Amino acid sequence: MALYGGIEAGGTKFVCAVGTGPDDLRREVRFATGTPDESIAQAVAFFRDAETAYGRLAAAGIASFGPIDPDPASETFGYVTTTPKPGWAHTDFAGQVRRALGVPVGFDTDVNVAALGEFRWGAAQGLDTFIYLTVGTGIGGGAMVNGRLVHGLMHPEMGHIRIPHDRTADPYAGWCSYHGDCFEGLACGPAIAARWGVPATELAPDHPAWDLEVEYLANGLVSLMLPISPQRIVMGGGVMEQTHLFPRIRRRVQELLNGYVQADAIVNEIDGYIVPPALGNRSGVLGAIALAELAATG
Amino acid sequence: MALYGGIEAGGTKFVCAVGTGPDDLRREVRFATGTPDESIAQAVAFFRDAETAYGRLAAAGIASFGPIDPDPASETFGYVTTTPKPGWAHTDFAGQVRRALGVPVGFDTDVNVAALGEFRWGAAQGLDTFIYLTVGTGIGGGAMVNGRLVHGLMHPEMGHIRIPHDRTADPYAGWCSYHGDCFEGLACGPAIAARWGVPATELAPDHPAWDLEVEYLANGLVSLMLPISPQRIVMGGGVMEQTHLFPRIRRRVQELLNGYVQADAIVNEIDGYIVPPALGNRSGVLGAIALAELAATG
Repeated sequence: MALYGGIEAGGTKFVCAVGTGPDDLRREVRFATGTPDESIAQAVAFFRDAETAYGRLAAAGIASFGPIDPDPASETFGYVTTTPKPGWAHTDFAGQVRRALGVPVGFDTDVNVAALGEFRWGAAQGLDTFIYLTVGTGIGGGAMVNGRLVHGLMHPEMGHIRIPHDRTADPYAGWCSYHGDCFEGLACGPAIAARWGVPATELAPDHPAWDLEVEYLANGLVSLMLPISPQRIVMGGGVMEQTHLFPRIRRRVQELLNGYVQADAIVNEIDGYIVPPALGNRSGVLGAIALAELAATG
Repeated sequence: MALYGGIEAGGTKFVCAVGTGPDDLRREVRFATGTPDESIAQAVAFFRDAETAYGRLAAAGIASFGPIDPDPASETFGYVTTTPKPGWAHTDFAGQVRRALGVPVGFDTDVNVAALGEFRWGAAQGLDTFIYLTVGTGIGGGAMVNGRLVHGLMHPEMGHIRIPHDRTADPYAGWCSYHGDCFEGLACGPAIAARWGVPATELAPDHPAWDLEVEYLANGLVSLMLPISPQRIVMGGGVMEQTHLFPRIRRRVQELLNGYVQADAIVNEIDGYIVPPALGNRSGVLGAIALAELAATG
């Protein structure tokens, strides 16, 4: 059975794994994200070591923080592009891994790859159009439409949509350094912490912080659902580990839509429509392995 | 050369045409939308008449007001579903046309079909991921992603996304009977008329109504662009016949994005990114002919 390598490259940490799927992860490593040279060398060393133990990898997949160039037809395919992260702008991430390992390398955004992981083995199996949204230190979304991941002009940046912000109810100006009170600016983990002066994890489930969070997340979801018409929305990330949010978000989404979209999945079966990731916090690294599978088979 | 029939079925009027494309429209008719029986009979009679003159149609395409069922795998494919429009709920629109004419019939939303028209012969030629947005008596959007029209759970309903609404600057509660101040509720033609007490067409280009309209349209566009990552946005409909809006919307979209999406198309070439339909107000009926082509070739 062909063996694959996956890299989930985040702004703060790398997760690398070798295996064939969720029930067969042979080896995994996590390390803090350093310079591109350091981090890519560490990942490559991990894979080479695993190859010594388990045999050759057939391909690798990379789920990368962005912005990136995920267009295989582009000259800068596989690059991290204009990121403000020191040292990483204009880094040929996929190319370096490909040359070091000598195998095909798939490359996409962290959230598209997490969506792919949930599609391959998780909460989006059998669907062709769905959204994977992560709410944590930022908000990001990946999407599959008609069975293929969405890229378009560049790649979706779902965290930065504009949503209603009642400054009377919530005078906080927002966390986003580009847009202030965009969706991410109002609803990501650091925005909660900055607004209330304590980390989100320390706020009890009945704290008014969560009323506001439900309002923003439900407004954001509605504005993501209506353009894409997903068959399901998978919500992961650190903030969504507050599982009490799920029933409240579902109810508020129904209220906001107010019967406009007459689909059973929303009107009658919303508990199965807005769901946590079935792969927990491993959607990304498992998605990278699923992306490697695709890269291997062309 | 195969001849096709197209129906653009709107809530107030039907446009039917026979031809092979924009340079070869043999015959066209417009009539007020009546009951389903009346309107479908009128369309069928028009096509039969045209067949007598020009020969058999190879297929027909329908661009329908909604909500509809556009899923060919569904038992109610081709139906107008839960519309409040009297008489039209649960009407087997495509089936009646197919049985009457004895040809394959394509069926999709008015806005998806207009998108297809612009893709086939208009402002979206050569793209694989784009949005067609109409701003008129309502706001609706169709989208193509990776070369295929978006349906998902049902079909996009882009007019009903949530956008910021500063009630101090604009106390108007919004036109939408479902959501009040959603995108359509704030920015459709009837909302402009209700807010200012005169039809939008009578407002001079320097009227403050347009400042507000630009703000809402730019906010809506940003929230549609970020999830879908279109390579272009085509904006049609009655309100967009106010062509002075285009440069103002483009500038405001750039301001709102604030350099976050570093794509040339947006940062440097936005005049070619947010554009009017190349087919004018015939994107819909020509799109219906393009849809018929697809139906004929399976």
